[in-house]
Amino acid sequence: QSLKIGLIPADGIGKEVIPAARTVLEALGSDIPKPEFIDLLAGWEVFTRSGSALPEETVETLRECDGALFGAVSSPSRSVTGYSSPIVALRKQLDLYANVRPVVSVAATPEEKPAVDLVVVRENTECLYVKQEVLTHTAQGKEARATRLITERASHRIGKMAFDIALGRPRKQVTIIHKSNVLSVTDGLFRETVRGVPAKYPGQYDSVKLEEQIVDSAVYRLIREPEIYDVMVAPNLYGDIISDAAAALVGSLGLVPSVNAGDKFVMGEPVHGSAPDIEGKGIANPIAAIRSAALMLRHLGYAQGADRIDVAVDQVIREGQVLTPDLGGSSSTNDVLNAVLKKM
Amino acid sequence: QSLKIGLIPADGIGKEVIPAARTVLEALGSDIPKPEFIDLLAGWEVFTRSGSALPEETVETLRECDGALFGAVSSPSRSVTGYSSPIVALRKQLDLYANVRPVVSVAATPEEKPAVDLVVVRENTECLYVKQEVLTHTAQGKEARATRLITERASHRIGKMAFDIALGRPRKQVTIIHKSNVLSVTDGLFRETVRGVPAKYPGQYDSVKLEEQIVDSAVYRLIREPEIYDVMVAPNLYGDIISDAAAALVGSLGLVPSVNAGDKFVMGEPVHGSAPDIEGKGIANPIAAIRSAALMLRHLGYAQGADRIDVAVDQVIREGQVLTPDLGGSSSTNDVLNAVLKKM
Ligand SMILES: CC(C)[C@H](C(=O)O)[C@@H](O)C(=O)O
Ligand SMILES: CC(C)[C@H](C(=O)O)[C@@H](O)C(=O)O
Repeated sequence: QSLKIGLIPADGIGKEVIPAARTVLEALGSDIPKPEFIDLLAGWEVFTRSGSALPEETVETLRECDGALFGAVSSPSRSVTGYSSPIVALRKQLDLYANVRPVVSVAATPEEKPAVDLVVVRENTECLYVKQEVLTHTAQGKEARATRLITERASHRIGKMAFDIALGRPRKQVTIIHKSNVLSVTDGLFRETVRGVPAKYPGQYDSVKLEEQIVDSAVYRLIREPEIYDVMVAPNLYGDIISDAAAALVGSLGLVPSVNAGDKFVMGEPVHGSAPDIEGKGIANPIAAIRSAALMLRHLGYAQGADRIDVAVDQVIREGQVLTPDLGGSSSTNDVLNAVLKKM
Repeated sequence: QSLKIGLIPADGIGKEVIPAARTVLEALGSDIPKPEFIDLLAGWEVFTRSGSALPEETVETLRECDGALFGAVSSPSRSVTGYSSPIVALRKQLDLYANVRPVVSVAATPEEKPAVDLVVVRENTECLYVKQEVLTHTAQGKEARATRLITERASHRIGKMAFDIALGRPRKQVTIIHKSNVLSVTDGLFRETVRGVPAKYPGQYDSVKLEEQIVDSAVYRLIREPEIYDVMVAPNLYGDIISDAAAALVGSLGLVPSVNAGDKFVMGEPVHGSAPDIEGKGIANPIAAIRSAALMLRHLGYAQGADRIDVAVDQVIREGQVLTPDLGGSSSTNDVLNAVLKKM
């Protein structure tokens, strides 16, 4: 038995951090079935060469994989006809409806409680990301309209995912993020549907505490008192913004992993982007990608392998000897990778 | 000659901070024309009594005022038929197309540069705030759709406002906030239109530096390195979230003022909400409301009066003797008001 894993480094530092994550997976040995890696293309670079940002072959091959790791995509500085983000398309085509982003700070000792310890559970297929946009020309100039779609079905399944994740955490608290004081219909539906999850599974979620916050004040309070949050569940765009805000609280985007999860497939993805400013310098922080690999394993049921990676990464961060520049150090991607491997 | 100012305390602590701002305006004496105040109703409380959150009379009276001060509105905890936020309606009905939110930290001495010194210039009439929402019932359950509207006309005038504000600041930098990597049509239009402002006024904005940021990473960088920003111009919803994030960096939402500005009318409004948790206790921070009054005066052309208020407020904060609980003190709304009055 082997573990088939698609690797899509895509653009920029994606090409530096995904190989590091691969090496860590290989180092796990018998903790997981032997991984078999398949290199796949997507992104801006392949678009400029082939005219497609997400080749059909990539999607088809992924359908036969157990999991995948995605790097990062570059965006052109002006909008380019025919180009659109392959990560958004992948999430939709593979129905990876949940974007799960744990944001955890590393405390000084393993016994201490981290200052920030939350999970953003972001709906991953709708909201403004349906990309239904139209442009019209009027006497007053151009007018553009985008549709924001919120369905009961997608809100329910992301809500259930949030409750399930909360059940497995000590605090067991879900906070719904919305803006129903303005968007009473769309965010109203999201809010009521998530609120309604426990009633559909009598008894199952009795231990979970339910809270809610309006998105603007949620971000304010996230910065001021991150400890009030445990699991934050949000429509797509709010989740996008909130997870970056949370990442800012733990020292660097270079530390924050995510998985795009569906019912049958899971794809790890560092929350950071392609970082054109440091691309090719060998100094990208590989930790977000390495942790995304661990998170992927966790969702596939290999908790032991995931733990081994996470414990090793925590040790490296805690010791503070081998850090990339985003964390104030001067080590390289490879230095950090080797430090993690040594701890495993 | 007198200055006609509508006062709309609305709900919660709005009723505690707006009277404080009024008292400060009265104390200005000959720095401004004699203010004449007109009390007006809006909000959740008047809705529960009269069925209207924004009585026609309020809007009509405001049309004859020089300026206004708005407090804060409470939201019902579930959506209530017929109720919708009066502040959103007021902005639209009076065409107050710019929400200008300066976020400035107070340095230890007047000579020192503040760590955070930026202005969020938020488009105030469209984006998802057009509140065009529809609910449909399908075999898979409910589906809700909202329209996000971005027009060239509104993007141009908010862009011009941002460039004008930048011209009056030492750094002279405008950063466009958008998400055109996903919303290529709507945010693409916003971005291109704002970018196009200088070309329409040859020579006028040559000294202004133009930058841009994708909204999620803009929030990340705002938290990590707020000093990179000067004037941030954003569509409505991003502006809403960004200004709360920025407020979190300067100690308290209770410090951050705003104006809703149109070509003919300006309405001051503290960025904070109605704060039901501290309502009626007399401990709400009046500084955001007092500063909103100063900002209103500045937009009406009374810089001298505005300066007197701001200098007094800065002194009170810098001394740190009289602070409300949100800033770690134990003073009351009235204590702070009196401290400000004494410095004037
Ligand atoms: C690159 C972009 C399309 C993407 C998103 O908005 O989802 C990114 O910001 C993310 O969070 O994964
Ligand atoms: C109360 C609410 C409708 C409002 C908004 O979203 O604009 C508030 O958050 C603000 O920032 O003034």
